Amino acid sequence: MLGELAHIGRDPATNGYVRDAWSAADLELREWFAGEAGRRGLDLREDRNGNLWAWWGDPSVTPGVVTGSHLDSVRQGGAYDGPLGVVSAFQALDLIKERGFQPGRPLGIACFTDEEGARFGVPCMGSRLLTGVLDPDRARGLADDDGRTLAEVLASAGRKPYGLGKDEETLGHVGVFVELHVEQGRGLVDRGRPVGVASAIWPHGRWRFDFRGQANHAGTTRLEDRDDPMLAYAAKVLAAREAAGRYGVVATFGKVRVSPNNANAIPGQVSAWLDARGAWERAVRALVAELGAGEQVSEESWTPVVDFDGALRERVAAAAGDVPVLATGAGHDAGILATAGVPSAMLFVRNPTGVSHSPAEFAEEADCAAGVEALARVLEDLCR
Amino acid sequence: MLGELAHIGRDPATNGYVRDAWSAADLELREWFAGEAGRRGLDLREDRNGNLWAWWGDPSVTPGVVTGSHLDSVRQGGAYDGPLGVVSAFQALDLIKERGFQPGRPLGIACFTDEEGARFGVPCMGSRLLTGVLDPDRARGLADDDGRTLAEVLASAGRKPYGLGKDEETLGHVGVFVELHVEQGRGLVDRGRPVGVASAIWPHGRWRFDFRGQANHAGTTRLEDRDDPMLAYAAKVLAAREAAGRYGVVATFGKVRVSPNNANAIPGQVSAWLDARGAWERAVRALVAELGAGEQVSEESWTPVVDFDGALRERVAAAAGDVPVLATGAGHDAGILATAGVPSAMLFVRNPTGVSHSPAEFAEEADCAAGVEALARVLEDLCR
Repeated sequence: MLGELAHIGRDPATNGYVRDAWSAADLELREWFAGEAGRRGLDLREDRNGNLWAWWGDPSVTPGVVTGSHLDSVRQGGAYDGPLGVVSAFQALDLIKERGFQPGRPLGIACFTDEEGARFGVPCMGSRLLTGVLDPDRARGLADDDGRTLAEVLASAGRKPYGLGKDEETLGHVGVFVELHVEQGRGLVDRGRPVGVASAIWPHGRWRFDFRGQANHAGTTRLEDRDDPMLAYAAKVLAAREAAGRYGVVATFGKVRVSPNNANAIPGQVSAWLDARGAWERAVRALVAELGAGEQVSEESWTPVVDFDGALRERVAAAAGDVPVLATGAGHDAGILATAGVPSAMLFVRNPTGVSHSPAEFAEEADCAAGVEALARVLEDLCR
Repeated sequence: MLGELAHIGRDPATNGYVRDAWSAADLELREWFAGEAGRRGLDLREDRNGNLWAWWGDPSVTPGVVTGSHLDSVRQGGAYDGPLGVVSAFQALDLIKERGFQPGRPLGIACFTDEEGARFGVPCMGSRLLTGVLDPDRARGLADDDGRTLAEVLASAGRKPYGLGKDEETLGHVGVFVELHVEQGRGLVDRGRPVGVASAIWPHGRWRFDFRGQANHAGTTRLEDRDDPMLAYAAKVLAAREAAGRYGVVATFGKVRVSPNNANAIPGQVSAWLDARGAWERAVRALVAELGAGEQVSEESWTPVVDFDGALRERVAAAAGDVPVLATGAGHDAGILATAGVPSAMLFVRNPTGVSHSPAEFAEEADCAAGVEALARVLEDLCR
């Protein structure tokens, strides 16, 4: 079923996926979701923030059990991060139906909008807006690399930008949320297990560093007359790696914007984004304070630690077949919902490469099937 | 007169100019050139490589004296680099005419195409094609950031891409070439003089470094599992600065391309362009060999030292009013013509900031007028 999506937004040069929110690829993926919902007779709804919900049963009577994930990708990402959770949701529902199980509560499949933040820089945009932790005015004003704001992009896609914002009604339909996701590290590989359950999401954030200098001619400016911000940036990249080791966290400069970015000009400005995460908030904060001292830094996002509901986690782990429990450094919509007070859990499917956000991201078919089976058992248990 | 061009291709956010070859701004500048030629009754020709020539007299009878420069800019460049030489050429011609001087040889004003190489990566494209040092097949296949080849861009602009290449006839019209240019360093400021003449152009080149690693998730990949090419790049930036000081040359990483350039992904590849120049070819070559050892490097351009014709330089310096002689680290079309055997010289106009390839690039009106006066005297001398 994942194969049906294989052609959408794929860069033939790299085999990587580029599925920015509200791009043509994303709209095609949303169409696919609507089609799958329709074929199963589910009630399809798009909420005011662009998240999609396909319901079996009416959640306005009783809050339901929801599973799902997202369909957008990072740029040059893999095929599994997001889509595996959505596809597995439909497949788990099919399995439940085949077995003649009649749920005692409504069962929903969710597709959250713009989980990766590849286009507008804010990850989990759909769930952050839904739960009210992202200000809709700020969201509307976020611009993509072409300078188009989210408001303009939504209007072009026939959506209503002024509908964005906290949506108690939709959120009230979600009694419990379980997100299945490809693992993005080596936890399950190291344990030799196909499926696991999440204990926590590390605290994590994103900071923009602006290094300013004096744009000048690369050939005629003496070394002693230079104010080259690329040197400050380079030193910071190496400092970040050294400090990350010392603080026991991870820190990454993965995105850079150089102005003017001419081969024959000393740059006038280098802007770079630091992503930092770790098990302990205090360590992450200390790293950022050390690297940011004396620099021009702005915090673009910060997500405190998410400890998933312990009782729910135990129940999910048991229903899934007594699977191992592991923490993750990756943010997810499940974490946003958990922070908003929705009992939430996550299932991970083994990734033999341990690589994610890359075309090398992978999961074996047998492991994907084990994930669907585990998810189906969890949903049956929660819907009883 | 430079003021007439002030609005073309100007970024209102920065006051920098973006005048890529064959862009709308460039086409407008070419129209302006044609208009100025027409108003003076000059014979306008565009050669097969897109360079413009405005002739007073017929150079097919006797090779002429040519002055001029270029109208394109680096991205976010200043108002003077290029346009000052073209505008001064028209003004010097006006001055000569006002004085009733009758040239004994044809006098031409040239505007070379794509001197900066901002769009297709190869500087002095117009003069390199004209003189045959750039292979037209290679030129046609060069792509801009949007993936459009020069051949496609030329066809869109109504030009004939298959006309590109060495043009002996046009080159044969140029008996001697004098390019006036804003100085791009502090040589004239330090000497307290408004105008100078060039002794040499340093040998210079451009090399692309491709640092490859493993794209991966910034949050879930342990430090010890990472293969992050940004670290290799950062170390190389610092190494280049240190080595440049040691070899007595200048070296700059001013352009970087990161893939996928996501804030939450370790990059899979970082490509960066090294610009290196110096008085001694051996020192530049040694620097590049040291920095490139064990790396994936390709040489994108290399220009050996240009020693301008000594007798011509003395004659120009004398006619211009006994002005100082200085070397430059910047490449120019005059250097390409000199290498092709055309006797060539350059006049520099003082730049009080010493800054170029930046909106801070500047020249005082009085110094620009001194440049025009010097150029007019040089042209009269050469046209006698």
